[in-house]
Amino acid sequence: MMGVWTLFTGIAAFPLTPTTEAGIDERAFTGLVTRMVAAGVDSVGALGSTGSYAYLSPAERQQVARLAVEAAGSTPVIVGIGALRTREVRRYAEDAQRAGAAAVLLAPMSYQALTPEEVYGLYETVTAELSVPLCVYDNPGTTHFAFTDDLYARIARLPGVRSIKIPGVPVDPVAAAERVRALRSRLPAEIALGVSGDPFAATGLAAGCDLWYSVLAGVLPVPCIALTRAAQSGDTATAAALSGRLEPLWSVFRSHGSLRTVAAIAESLGLVSTPNLPAPVRGLPADAREAVAAALATLHDLA
Amino acid sequence: MMGVWTLFTGIAAFPLTPTTEAGIDERAFTGLVTRMVAAGVDSVGALGSTGSYAYLSPAERQQVARLAVEAAGSTPVIVGIGALRTREVRRYAEDAQRAGAAAVLLAPMSYQALTPEEVYGLYETVTAELSVPLCVYDNPGTTHFAFTDDLYARIARLPGVRSIKIPGVPVDPVAAAERVRALRSRLPAEIALGVSGDPFAATGLAAGCDLWYSVLAGVLPVPCIALTRAAQSGDTATAAALSGRLEPLWSVFRSHGSLRTVAAIAESLGLVSTPNLPAPVRGLPADAREAVAAALATLHDLA
Repeated sequence: MMGVWTLFTGIAAFPLTPTTEAGIDERAFTGLVTRMVAAGVDSVGALGSTGSYAYLSPAERQQVARLAVEAAGSTPVIVGIGALRTREVRRYAEDAQRAGAAAVLLAPMSYQALTPEEVYGLYETVTAELSVPLCVYDNPGTTHFAFTDDLYARIARLPGVRSIKIPGVPVDPVAAAERVRALRSRLPAEIALGVSGDPFAATGLAAGCDLWYSVLAGVLPVPCIALTRAAQSGDTATAAALSGRLEPLWSVFRSHGSLRTVAAIAESLGLVSTPNLPAPVRGLPADAREAVAAALATLHDLA
Repeated sequence: MMGVWTLFTGIAAFPLTPTTEAGIDERAFTGLVTRMVAAGVDSVGALGSTGSYAYLSPAERQQVARLAVEAAGSTPVIVGIGALRTREVRRYAEDAQRAGAAAVLLAPMSYQALTPEEVYGLYETVTAELSVPLCVYDNPGTTHFAFTDDLYARIARLPGVRSIKIPGVPVDPVAAAERVRALRSRLPAEIALGVSGDPFAATGLAAGCDLWYSVLAGVLPVPCIALTRAAQSGDTATAAALSGRLEPLWSVFRSHGSLRTVAAIAESLGLVSTPNLPAPVRGLPADAREAVAAALATLHDLA
């Protein structure tokens, strides 16, 4: 039961789902989860955006959820259940719970642009049937849906909603704290605010976010946990300094996206084979791979 | 064989795929295809964006492709094969050909933002395996990928590429003609340029586009065919006047999207049941439905 208490606090790490046209690389995936859990992450986020949930078949998603729960042991696993269609989301919610998910993560994927009412309706339908907590996943870069604070506030009152994964905070620490305070004032007290967009993590945690939904922790858990623990103990200077040392990686995140960047890190560390991303998505071009390798060399003492 | 010669000329009409959580409404779908073919469209575009291809299961997509080919008779059917993953696109291409598609339509759907190289790679992989012509489907509003003319030009040289469905043209007729001329100068002569974004149709055809990929013709084929025939005969004034009469509908297209608008038109005409859109997508709100009904009343002599 210990695991449940670490849900929606500290650091949730999102493993890649190494995959080829032939299927999931089970060994590599289990290795990534085992590694982050051994390092001490508070929860595991399987089938997040960088876990390529949007690209996998229902059977593959079930397979990944089961492997994650198995490898995570007593560490709680949050499972992504997003899909373009409500019918599929309901199915994935059921599959995730059957696999042993401690919570689910739901982004409003879109093809036809969605209205706020349509997105509210999606969360309303799904939460009515859920037996585990839900985290609202706001990632406009992939979903192309922009939440408003009004919509956050309405959805946060649905049964079982316990966290919102926000896409980032202002760069300025004072503005970030103001943003988190303003948002929190609109939400029930039990909603955990989680910062994502890894370059924003130190600022977001210092600004009062409850946790970091971390992509980098999927491949480099040690420095990400150190950053989180520093922030949790109030040592924002150490957290900011650690984030500063990760800046060469954040720079590649910004220019090539977090998925391709963490995949290159995992390849460089020998944690996954190449290729490991779902076509048509490709790995980093050569120059960015060199930037990743150079950044990793400077982080040697942290990994 | 007659049908093949009307592919990529004149007007391609895209039927809705009326659907509920329980499945496809076969009778209504067949009715829509039969109706547009009887009215005289040059080709049928099954499983376009307003055919909800992105929301359907592989089995449902096969079912729709087969029904369309059956109902279309000698009129050629273009079948949408888009998916987030290359693996699925290849599968849909095979399924579409097996169902009797005269051509396929491929949009670069995205979840992770795609690079031009990734999109080129997708078309390269798919065209290498195709036995029917392919239309490049550029719809940035749903795919969130922006083609450049350079990329159009590279993809247009892949084997079997025969058309590009462009998302619109400048509103100004002179600028529109200049745009079509500039684009055409970059492309092989056999590429048919098709205008989409129905409010742009008259301007696009007058500017030299070879055909109109029409959403409205899926529910109101008669005025759309009249507009096309006028434009084809060089009577741009009549085409523009017809488009002007449709302006109350274009206005609803612009504020609520073409899918919800044509669904409401089809409901209003008794061609489909309600609901007929894939949740979380919902039908038009009441005020927009009233605008649709009012617009239809003014078009009485055209339908």
